[in-house]
Amino acid sequence: MIPSPLNDFELTCPVPISDYPVVLLAHGGGGTLTHQLIERMFLPTFKNPLLEARHDGALLPAQPGKCAFTTDSYVVKPLFFPGGDIGKLAVCGTVNDLAMCGARPAFLSAAFIIEEGLPMAMLWQVVLSMQAAAQQAGVQIVTGDTKVVDRGKGDQLFITTAGVGIIAPEQVISPQRVQPGDAILLSGDLGRHGMAIMAAREGLDFESVIESDCAPLTDLVFSLLDAGIEVHCLRDLTRGGLASALVEIARSSGHHIHVDEKAIPVREDVRGACEILGLDPLYVANEGRFVAFVAASDAERALAILRAQQAGDAAVIIGQVQSTRDHSVTMRSVIGANRIVDMISGEQLPRIC
Amino acid sequence: MIPSPLNDFELTCPVPISDYPVVLLAHGGGGTLTHQLIERMFLPTFKNPLLEARHDGALLPAQPGKCAFTTDSYVVKPLFFPGGDIGKLAVCGTVNDLAMCGARPAFLSAAFIIEEGLPMAMLWQVVLSMQAAAQQAGVQIVTGDTKVVDRGKGDQLFITTAGVGIIAPEQVISPQRVQPGDAILLSGDLGRHGMAIMAAREGLDFESVIESDCAPLTDLVFSLLDAGIEVHCLRDLTRGGLASALVEIARSSGHHIHVDEKAIPVREDVRGACEILGLDPLYVANEGRFVAFVAASDAERALAILRAQQAGDAAVIIGQVQSTRDHSVTMRSVIGANRIVDMISGEQLPRIC
Repeated sequence: MIPSPLNDFELTCPVPISDYPVVLLAHGGGGTLTHQLIERMFLPTFKNPLLEARHDGALLPAQPGKCAFTTDSYVVKPLFFPGGDIGKLAVCGTVNDLAMCGARPAFLSAAFIIEEGLPMAMLWQVVLSMQAAAQQAGVQIVTGDTKVVDRGKGDQLFITTAGVGIIAPEQVISPQRVQPGDAILLSGDLGRHGMAIMAAREGLDFESVIESDCAPLTDLVFSLLDAGIEVHCLRDLTRGGLASALVEIARSSGHHIHVDEKAIPVREDVRGACEILGLDPLYVANEGRFVAFVAASDAERALAILRAQQAGDAAVIIGQVQSTRDHSVTMRSVIGANRIVDMISGEQLPRIC
Repeated sequence: MIPSPLNDFELTCPVPISDYPVVLLAHGGGGTLTHQLIERMFLPTFKNPLLEARHDGALLPAQPGKCAFTTDSYVVKPLFFPGGDIGKLAVCGTVNDLAMCGARPAFLSAAFIIEEGLPMAMLWQVVLSMQAAAQQAGVQIVTGDTKVVDRGKGDQLFITTAGVGIIAPEQVISPQRVQPGDAILLSGDLGRHGMAIMAAREGLDFESVIESDCAPLTDLVFSLLDAGIEVHCLRDLTRGGLASALVEIARSSGHHIHVDEKAIPVREDVRGACEILGLDPLYVANEGRFVAFVAASDAERALAILRAQQAGDAAVIIGQVQSTRDHSVTMRSVIGANRIVDMISGEQLPRIC
């Protein structure tokens, strides 16, 4: 199903595959091989002046306003899946966390924990994918680290990225700003990332290939902010999915959230896969979807802005913040009954991101 | 040799050991157990307003000047060793990278990759140790992430920290500022961290317990900068030790560095352990030592400032930058001969940090 990642990347790998077909412990030892990896693979690919200064730390230019600072470790299994890989995920996930604070993603760090024996061409594919995602999201990878652990003490590759984003001085995006009447916009269909990972991991063969929705959300978010839409709160729908995001925002804001199940787009193949696996698409992780709480008066304009872009062409208004202060989430189901939406207690899908 | 980490920490662990003696996959799933870990263990221990905002990212206040931004993953084995543990190391290592840029460490992120089955009390001990080190270094841990990987797919615990430090507007610390005549100061004795790890890992029993020198270097560095010492370059002596640091600075600055072996302090027990294991203390990793390149006219005053503090009481002047532009490092040995010091090619000690 997934093409072998080694076909195309062995040929272009800047570390000679003939000498180093796999990553060795010494590639993380701080000596000659570490330098080779940095000088040949990381520096020319992530190419930017801050990184090329080769300091222990990158020197970031002074910023006029507040910054947002965030981190995530990525341990997704398998490393490659339809629609993305751990590298794309490690850039998009952290970029999206920044965008959800209303911060324009600017600088990323990347720390690799590699299991000895990882095919060098696989590392190369991941690095290329990180750079492509960084370019799309408008961020620079400015500092990093490489560690190698012995065979059997890791799982091929873990990546931890941290990000710094710049917040416009007047911008406040927070659950505390959510107010009764706010419209709740959803940027696209649900459940594809989780189902893509599950299918790849379990070797499930559905009629169509479900591709992850993994993508940077920077452009969508800033198209709203730059147009002066009164955005009160943003949340990406990763672990725990839409349901958990809404429950968290209802609790933090103290307001009742009501959504309409009929309005929530889920592709037929995703819905089918969820049914087979006994999963609820509302709880499945996405990596390129978010909800925006916007002032009611701006709702239609916000929707039009999102829909005008390819990444947001399936955006919808799914509900509204109610004036009752019971901080619960309710949903009108497709058959017309109201039900309470709660947080999931256990683990739905481990190592999804 | 090393006391069991579980004796004292089971009693005070804020996550009930009776319910959760070990970390489960669900602790990393983003659901109820992840929230319990965050609310009971991380938030109250790392306690600060930025973290308590519970955003996906921390909102950092606006800074007047440049910032330094750095990251490192820590995969040290074993997790606990005389003089420290992975938590102390994960804070000190990143704090020290910032200090070496002349940046005052301010904000840290902490991302945990935990192997399922890690004793909960062990995680608690590490978290306490991180907070103690953060407090000593004057930084706040403001954002983080927790992932759990299945048994056999990690090695107990990996921690990745990223740091943001504030640079005074006029401050430039860089190998490019190194100039002929600069005095080279070393902040203390060499080789203890590497030997402490080796002894703990291999179960070696030397006459005395060698404790790691792992410590934040913030106070020492800023005692020099705040006193107006003309500091040109700083470098901490981690992987690759003193020798690799000097070689790197000689290459980057384009100047010849000459040091005197007699002046370089190595404790007798460390020297003995190195001899037994066939290691050269000049190449062994330290986690609380640095070299400072300072203007010749400030050398004696800088030395006095370092020696006035406990952490720098063994500081010495070990050499000088020469006017020949051959960017090599030479050392006058204890028997009076000059030899060239080069970078080590292979891996000396894997998973030292």
